[in-house]
Amino acid sequence: MTEHLVVFQPVGKRGRIQEGKTLREAGRELGADLESLCGGRQACGKCKVRIEEGHSLGLGMRSGQSHLSLPTEKEVELLGESAVNDGYRLACAATIAGPLSVYIPEESRTSKQVVAKTATQRAISLKPAVRKCYVELSNPRVEDPRGDWERLSEEITHRFGLAGLDIDYQALCCLSDIVRKADWKVTVTVSMERHRVTMVHPGLVERSFGLAIDVGTTTLAGYLCDLNTGEIIAAEAVMNPQISYGEDVISRITYAMDSPDGLSQLNACVIEALNGLTSNLAGKAGLVVEDIADVTMVGNTAMHHLFLKLDPQHLGRAPFTPVLHRPLDITARELGLKVHPATNVHILPILAGFVGADNIGVLVSEKPHDQEEVALVVDVGTNGELVLGNRRRLIAASCATGSPFEGAHIKFGMRAAAGAIERVVVDPQTCEVRFKVVGDDCWSDQGSRVKARGICGSGVIDAIAGMLHAQIINPRGAFNKNISMSRLLRDGGEPEFVIAWPAETAIDRAITISQGDVREVQLAKGALAAGARLLMNKLGVEQVDKVILAGAFGLHIDKANAMSIGLVPDCGWDKVYSVGNAAGEGARMALLNVNERREAAEIAQRLEYIELTAEPSFSKEFVHAMEFRPWKGI
Amino acid sequence: MTEHLVVFQPVGKRGRIQEGKTLREAGRELGADLESLCGGRQACGKCKVRIEEGHSLGLGMRSGQSHLSLPTEKEVELLGESAVNDGYRLACAATIAGPLSVYIPEESRTSKQVVAKTATQRAISLKPAVRKCYVELSNPRVEDPRGDWERLSEEITHRFGLAGLDIDYQALCCLSDIVRKADWKVTVTVSMERHRVTMVHPGLVERSFGLAIDVGTTTLAGYLCDLNTGEIIAAEAVMNPQISYGEDVISRITYAMDSPDGLSQLNACVIEALNGLTSNLAGKAGLVVEDIADVTMVGNTAMHHLFLKLDPQHLGRAPFTPVLHRPLDITARELGLKVHPATNVHILPILAGFVGADNIGVLVSEKPHDQEEVALVVDVGTNGELVLGNRRRLIAASCATGSPFEGAHIKFGMRAAAGAIERVVVDPQTCEVRFKVVGDDCWSDQGSRVKARGICGSGVIDAIAGMLHAQIINPRGAFNKNISMSRLLRDGGEPEFVIAWPAETAIDRAITISQGDVREVQLAKGALAAGARLLMNKLGVEQVDKVILAGAFGLHIDKANAMSIGLVPDCGWDKVYSVGNAAGEGARMALLNVNERREAAEIAQRLEYIELTAEPSFSKEFVHAMEFRPWKGI
Repeated sequence: MTEHLVVFQPVGKRGRIQEGKTLREAGRELGADLESLCGGRQACGKCKVRIEEGHSLGLGMRSGQSHLSLPTEKEVELLGESAVNDGYRLACAATIAGPLSVYIPEESRTSKQVVAKTATQRAISLKPAVRKCYVELSNPRVEDPRGDWERLSEEITHRFGLAGLDIDYQALCCLSDIVRKADWKVTVTVSMERHRVTMVHPGLVERSFGLAIDVGTTTLAGYLCDLNTGEIIAAEAVMNPQISYGEDVISRITYAMDSPDGLSQLNACVIEALNGLTSNLAGKAGLVVEDIADVTMVGNTAMHHLFLKLDPQHLGRAPFTPVLHRPLDITARELGLKVHPATNVHILPILAGFVGADNIGVLVSEKPHDQEEVALVVDVGTNGELVLGNRRRLIAASCATGSPFEGAHIKFGMRAAAGAIERVVVDPQTCEVRFKVVGDDCWSDQGSRVKARGICGSGVIDAIAGMLHAQIINPRGAFNKNISMSRLLRDGGEPEFVIAWPAETAIDRAITISQGDVREVQLAKGALAAGARLLMNKLGVEQVDKVILAGAFGLHIDKANAMSIGLVPDCGWDKVYSVGNAAGEGARMALLNVNERREAAEIAQRLEYIELTAEPSFSKEFVHAMEFRPWKGI
Repeated sequence: MTEHLVVFQPVGKRGRIQEGKTLREAGRELGADLESLCGGRQACGKCKVRIEEGHSLGLGMRSGQSHLSLPTEKEVELLGESAVNDGYRLACAATIAGPLSVYIPEESRTSKQVVAKTATQRAISLKPAVRKCYVELSNPRVEDPRGDWERLSEEITHRFGLAGLDIDYQALCCLSDIVRKADWKVTVTVSMERHRVTMVHPGLVERSFGLAIDVGTTTLAGYLCDLNTGEIIAAEAVMNPQISYGEDVISRITYAMDSPDGLSQLNACVIEALNGLTSNLAGKAGLVVEDIADVTMVGNTAMHHLFLKLDPQHLGRAPFTPVLHRPLDITARELGLKVHPATNVHILPILAGFVGADNIGVLVSEKPHDQEEVALVVDVGTNGELVLGNRRRLIAASCATGSPFEGAHIKFGMRAAAGAIERVVVDPQTCEVRFKVVGDDCWSDQGSRVKARGICGSGVIDAIAGMLHAQIINPRGAFNKNISMSRLLRDGGEPEFVIAWPAETAIDRAITISQGDVREVQLAKGALAAGARLLMNKLGVEQVDKVILAGAFGLHIDKANAMSIGLVPDCGWDKVYSVGNAAGEGARMALLNVNERREAAEIAQRLEYIELTAEPSFSKEFVHAMEFRPWKGI
């Protein structure tokens, strides 16, 4: 029995392989990572390899072609004549006749590195939870009386080495019909972690799709991804319709507790909205929802519970106990989620309080636990969540910020929709104001055409930073009694500073920042800053190396203004990063690579949660932190 | 650190254990098998042990009491004072102070031997698929912010050593409410094979219940069992309502194929009937259906497919391919079965053709594969299934017997219901007839009061054996043309032999056995005997050591008559056993002990199936076997 030395590059796996075996068999024996959809039938062309010059390895060959069987017709058809001339072969077709050096290109590896098309252009390595396997089955005969499922599963084991699989009950119910209509040639989708066949499709199906969902208090975001390339093929966000039951998480928890069927209503309305979103995404991509073979989900603790129809009432009061922290895997049809009914839905773990799967998603995506630098992750939405730490330790807290930055309790507050004032500049000398409105490229003094309807979070921060700088308010938040100017109104008793005159608005009234608005921002800012300080005390650091702002909030605020009022620690302008919807990005990373799911579970285990209200020094810190001033630490 | 020798009897586990440890801890360390429901809280009293005299073991003690801590109040309360005086202790309470010999009574072992209350009084060892665990949880506090599920699962791991559990989604949805209402003291039901918590009940719940189902073509049988004792606490059988879609499996398969929604209808009607049956059983036992924590199911291949809503059409034609053979585990709510929604339903494996889970059930219960003797298992219902073999080899076949023994195609045929002639004696000299009717203790010549309405399977066999003996028919099944007597009618052209005169019947007509009836029995008998002969040829035996008759049929026929007409091989009257509903018994054994499920899967793998119609010698054997004569082999 003649054997030859075979080397696989770039992985460097080498060993002696029996003559006559295919390169695919050699790859398996040596543990080289080779893609295959068709299980070695020369049907999919996925196991393309390049035969290398072998002199440097002492293989005594220039082109390896003479050390291989001749290219088959199928190889020429699938690879093209020129590729074959360039030394490319199908590993499942070419058999070994002498020593060889074989290069496995990126696209022929099961674990691929792809560059995700995100703002940060992060490299994501692909290891999806589902795998497609194409098989051709023999017809049943009297001498081979195996059942359809035995026939199928044994062929999958034989071709792909996947043993001990079971099959989803609904897939089993359709099996006999599909295999016969498809003339015994089918592609099965295997849920690798659950060792389960979830779908059976007729013929050869190459592409695989997954959905990452971010259930926010305000917004539901969905990312439909190609699991073979990692690409987002459709993305969409819609309002969370639960808003009609309450703007913030506490009011929704209250509704779930107090109304008969409240929990069912809240659950049904988010599931229905997600089903609409999913259907739109599939439509955009030219797919049907049943093509979606895997789903990951993140959300804050309350959204997580309502999505899962878990009683959220104990989240709303001390000791703020969730039903569970751990990640979950649930079949889509159990949740009423309209993708393929057998699809697994992976729900990322949550921590405690409102530090939920969304924050875990941010950590998965930003990986502070892999770094030496101490990072402060700030996620301000309808609540504020903080995570502080590095590779040695990670601690988290959530603080009741209210949601002034989303417009709540701000006199003219609104979300960042068309007509919202999103940028404000106050001249420190004249106290004159310029502003910019969402939906208009021009500033108010440059001939803007869209009239203002209100002011959103980033506008409020700019206005307050500007008012502070112009000494219209002092660091304690009080209006300066000694200044008097046309922009200062005192109609209702408490002072207000005019941002937009009635003529500049669509509401026939001036849009102002009132003393009450300043107090709301102080409360939010105080809670966040005090929380951050307490975490820094716990960790024993006096300064953070970087600040990561997660969520839409971080994308839109002016970082310098946020630092100048002390909303985030002043660690240098270039050390504050806005990462946008990093929670959704985390969900997408967990969708594309199961290792990220394990990492999320580990982070959730490691992360220490600090209940701020139980900390004796919190009130003192809070009062102190309400002052508008930059800060670098304790 | 002082250690003492501790010996557990009767298992003979021994080792040195640190002073101060409980006997329960010692049992765990030494691998002695000790029951516990409450996880060592002195609450359930299940870990009762007896302290033995230890001189013979060289332990230097007479009564071990001095080598143990004093009995606690709880021990006296749970065991009673006299038991404590007799040397009984709770293993979880008594701590070690010296060398000890400890006897574990049968009822304190997790694997108990119980005698099942069946006709055969078989000993079944108990190893149910579900286990109850009582736990008391600490309240959540700010310093212990674990979720409800983490709190529960970690306590189960700590107390019972069960790690890596997950929880059924619906159980998770109710969890936070139940644990709080129960003041954090709950009993969970763990599905051991699936590592899953399926139920959470408030307080201490000791009893556990399971249901074994036998889905027959004609009859649905259910056995509600106490999983702690193995006892049947309620049993019931109802007609399979699918009968209205066709009497036999072939007509139901045809209906499923040809009618739109035929499969759904057949599935829905059997599930609905089983739900009614289950509800009756629970009612009889004073339970609710949600108390049922485990289900096993057997049925022939067609019933198996219809129960599971699997397309049965390929079962009806060569090569008779089922959707699957393997055992299945499906959650009850997926099947629409109304027990506890998270309960696992274990469906036993099937073989091929119509050798289904019911026959596997018979083998599980009768265990020919454990024996040296060659057994022939005959199951005649609406079809005939045969299994032949012993510990070395088992082969099976199914034969199209039709169902003359259930009354089909017999002129006055009926099922064994009230009014059916079930016993017939023909005087070999006078040809006079005596008969007995179901529902009447007296024979026709002893003043019977119930009038005959028809004749059932056992009556037909008796009648034909009697007619053969009296030479009214010859071994080829033809009526003797030379005899003439009043009981011989020739009204419709073909001869008929009168069993009951019009005055003896409720139908105002004579009940007879016609030439056509004789032919039907010959066909059935020929198929069975030819099948058995072919199996004997394959196995290379000329004689069988015993015959096992399964099903209701076997219980009612006269064995001597069955042998005299050659329906079963003549291996001696005392070697023919009627085991009744052994399929149901197999389902019950699989319910009570998970090892029986593994054994069933192994049998199904081992059993060789012979497709009789594909055997060249079958037609010849069949023609030969149609003759009425006893036979001992080839």
